[in-house]
Amino acid sequence: MSETSTFAPRATTEQVEEGRLFAPKFDGDGLITCVVTDAWSAEVLMVAHMNPDALAKTITTGEAWFYSRSREKLWKKGETSGHAQRVVELRVDCDQDSVWLKVEQQGAGACHTGRRSCFYRAVPLGKNGAALQFREEGKAFDPEAVYRKK
Amino acid sequence: MSETSTFAPRATTEQVEEGRLFAPKFDGDGLITCVVTDAWSAEVLMVAHMNPDALAKTITTGEAWFYSRSREKLWKKGETSGHAQRVVELRVDCDQDSVWLKVEQQGAGACHTGRRSCFYRAVPLGKNGAALQFREEGKAFDPEAVYRKK
Repeated sequence: MSETSTFAPRATTEQVEEGRLFAPKFDGDGLITCVVTDAWSAEVLMVAHMNPDALAKTITTGEAWFYSRSREKLWKKGETSGHAQRVVELRVDCDQDSVWLKVEQQGAGACHTGRRSCFYRAVPLGKNGAALQFREEGKAFDPEAVYRKK
Repeated sequence: MSETSTFAPRATTEQVEEGRLFAPKFDGDGLITCVVTDAWSAEVLMVAHMNPDALAKTITTGEAWFYSRSREKLWKKGETSGHAQRVVELRVDCDQDSVWLKVEQQGAGACHTGRRSCFYRAVPLGKNGAALQFREEGKAFDPEAVYRKK
């Protein structure tokens, strides 16, 4: 992880919150949470995780890279599906333990289930246990074809 | 955590991804990641965590509750600052391990530093190590006054 040395050390709360040094905080598993929104519709497309290498590669290439916890590997969004994400803007939050990517989504959608967004269901308010409500009509693409499953 | 029984058990991937049962997945620390966006501007305001009680209370009350990892307690957003968040819509993602709250933010902002959003700085693309760029002019409110610090 040679690229991690490009991140600044975290000294004080004042530095982290009010400064211009990028000093991201990775959790106990070495990951930082990443929210991805569509730069044009502003919809939240997905939430994923980055290790230091994924974050460094995203910054240098301007394309979204993540770390897959299930596959335990660095992963370029779209490497299988072709549905890459060009980063329009990268933001970091106050305590620098989450990042926000505004992206231009390539292809029909971001979700491996075939939807535009991973957040295609709403949880009704007022009462726990109510049935989820679908918010996307059908699927934006055929995941079997795009992810070459069989 | 009596309210946790209101969540469905997770049986199959098909059920979790394509079904109408709300079966949220809490991580090893018993938490789920929550993205909060402004329902009107669509800006990402903050990323926080919920334990089962916080999630259940958010659903039943329609106001945002979280779990503070640093203070190790359930926390109603705005309990100190008055800057509560009324939930307009709650979404869950494909594998049900993140939720997205669209909220009507009360008061001048969501961030404890006095900004509207916690994501007030951008990370320049192209080269690691570049200085962060501020994206909010000044502060939306005085955090010393609002959070009654000394």
